[in-house]
Amino acid sequence: MRTEEFALRTGRTLITDLTARIDAWLAPADSGLLNVFVPHATAGLAIIETGAGTETDLDSTLERLLPIDDIYRHRHGSRGHGRDHVMPAFVAPSITLPVQGGRVLLGTWQSICLVDPNVDNPDRRVRLTLLTG
Amino acid sequence: MRTEEFALRTGRTLITDLTARIDAWLAPADSGLLNVFVPHATAGLAIIETGAGTETDLDSTLERLLPIDDIYRHRHGSRGHGRDHVMPAFVAPSITLPVQGGRVLLGTWQSICLVDPNVDNPDRRVRLTLLTG
Amino acid sequence: MRTEEFALRTGRTLITDLTARIDAWLAPADSGLLNVFVPHATAGLAIIETGAGTETDLDSTLERLLPIDDIYRHRHGSRGHGRDHVMPAFVAPSITLPVQGGRVLLGTWQSICLVDPNVDNPDRRVRLTLLTG
Repeated sequence: MRTEEFALRTGRTLITDLTARIDAWLAPADSGLLNVFVPHATAGLAIIETGAGTETDLDSTLERLLPIDDIYRHRHGSRGHGRDHVMPAFVAPSITLPVQGGRVLLGTWQSICLVDPNVDNPDRRVRLTLLTG
Repeated sequence: MRTEEFALRTGRTLITDLTARIDAWLAPADSGLLNVFVPHATAGLAIIETGAGTETDLDSTLERLLPIDDIYRHRHGSRGHGRDHVMPAFVAPSITLPVQGGRVLLGTWQSICLVDPNVDNPDRRVRLTLLTG
Repeated sequence: MRTEEFALRTGRTLITDLTARIDAWLAPADSGLLNVFVPHATAGLAIIETGAGTETDLDSTLERLLPIDDIYRHRHGSRGHGRDHVMPAFVAPSITLPVQGGRVLLGTWQSICLVDPNVDNPDRRVRLTLLTG
């Protein structure tokens, strides 16, 4: 097993593509299962295509399904912050992916993305754990 | 690998925090990937903050997005039970988490929670599987 | 570790039960964690009961929550294709499951299903990766 946490700054950006950073972390001979984990209660991970509009579509879908509104019991920080705490139940903060020959075996159009609706905390951490097989 | 199933009684409680039980199951030297799995078709797992209102917010969000209504084809048991069967497509019954030194490497505000909307089956099982690395 | 990709034809079928195929892939002595992964940006995996109406319920739930409409930025192919690209953020393309004695330790009513709303690409691949423990 190899595990390491890295920090990144998301600011007000909802979606951050982590794929290049994860690829760089893997060594050429690595094979096994890679777990990507976000140790935050207001962020999740999604495997989506980036660069073709889905970032915007996911943003508006989240606003439609989990409105930034005063309907939440959990209240502190910015308006609608309660929905940031509900999101990880649907967009989980953990995903496990197959690795072979130092590459995550993603499809052509897939990217590993951090989904971070929280505008109050611009600093985020992501943990990578590889269990070799 | 070490794997074990434990039973718990949820009754009409939607969200049950499993974190303490999972911590207690881990031995001090354990490191690797922990899979938490619910062998039920009407329950899921969520990593959320507990004790600050998100349990209530997730409950009302589920009722809004998956209404307890007669719109489902899958019908038996209590009214709206069909939505309990749809929920695991969005709140999956499996999550894998990094473990090091006998601790799940959760963030400060994260708890591992069973989400069980099913009021007809108060007895639930959860399986923990640790693959050491 | 053992990993293999297989192809299947989904056509216009939203939900395909993969359980029998996965069971057949496992050898009698296999134990560990099985990762099921779909290398496509418009498909996901769900553990649901099949044969009792939930396929239809999930279909109508997806149409309600992610309408096949012209509200998406990501546009090409069939109408509403943009929602197919949003879906994997909620119905993730990866799930990890415990295996013991050559069997996935599913509950009685659980099946491992491919959820593929994309009608433009009838040919799909699924990757199975077993990390033995």
